[in-house]
Amino acid sequence: MLVLGVDPGSNVTGYGLVEKKNHQLTCVHFGLIKPPAKAPFYQRIYHIFRGIEDIMAHYGPGEMAIEDIFYAKNVKSSLKLGHARGAILVAAAHRGIGVFEYSPLEIKKSVVGYGRAAKEQVRTMVRVILKLKEEPALDASDALAVAVCHLNWSRFATLTANPRHEGSRK
Amino acid sequence: MLVLGVDPGSNVTGYGLVEKKNHQLTCVHFGLIKPPAKAPFYQRIYHIFRGIEDIMAHYGPGEMAIEDIFYAKNVKSSLKLGHARGAILVAAAHRGIGVFEYSPLEIKKSVVGYGRAAKEQVRTMVRVILKLKEEPALDASDALAVAVCHLNWSRFATLTANPRHEGSRK
Repeated sequence: MLVLGVDPGSNVTGYGLVEKKNHQLTCVHFGLIKPPAKAPFYQRIYHIFRGIEDIMAHYGPGEMAIEDIFYAKNVKSSLKLGHARGAILVAAAHRGIGVFEYSPLEIKKSVVGYGRAAKEQVRTMVRVILKLKEEPALDASDALAVAVCHLNWSRFATLTANPRHEGSRK
Repeated sequence: MLVLGVDPGSNVTGYGLVEKKNHQLTCVHFGLIKPPAKAPFYQRIYHIFRGIEDIMAHYGPGEMAIEDIFYAKNVKSSLKLGHARGAILVAAAHRGIGVFEYSPLEIKKSVVGYGRAAKEQVRTMVRVILKLKEEPALDASDALAVAVCHLNWSRFATLTANPRHEGSRK
């Protein structure tokens, strides 16, 4: 099972691919999608869509995991974030892969064991769990964290026969 | 020149197609895209993307005009609106048609002559300008209004040789 984790943002979108084989989690790839800063806004949003499409075409993940967002700093930043996240959800649905959403609290609890952990703590634990030698950018480690969270949740769901429904949080 | 006007919303997205021939504006079609209420959020956003794709494939508009949004009621509603608008922008960019954004003030001024006009006044003027016998839903008349605004602006731009740049507002 290969999962694409995504940390959406209109300026920087982080992504990470995590594979589960024999109860072992491995990082397959991670990186950042950065739309050209001077392009018109709609072209930047489209750049994110194309970036996610390319990653899915290249690696063929079976599912996508993404942070569920309830709030943002202000109305303007939540509008921008909504655009980016909308483009990413469309890319996943267009390819026909399931989308699973987790709250920041669930992701941090799953990875660090503590719901209020800082991004740096999340990165440190992601590096330990996935045995990463490199230090990913924080947007990429957040993306890896949501993929790890989803794979942990799937294991829990299998054990309890209580599967989490796709996109059930909204 | 056929223009697709769009009034984005995650529950209801209005659209309207306006053609300009011999300095005459005609309504070709208008309607609403309503995603299934009980579907997961990401499927509803995808429904909007597919709806806009279908309209573009069927009518072949040369350009899209859409309201530029600076604010919404609150952070939650602006997140939802951002998702819907992101899906629509991706659909236009995917098809390769230019996107032109206008503020609510510009749209109302262009159609009613008064920047603070109510939605009902906009609808009344849209019906007069396009000689519509039917009364469109307010989301559809808002979509027709932004298309009319764009065609009026294009005329102005041609006269002054001062074309509005695509998606220049963000």
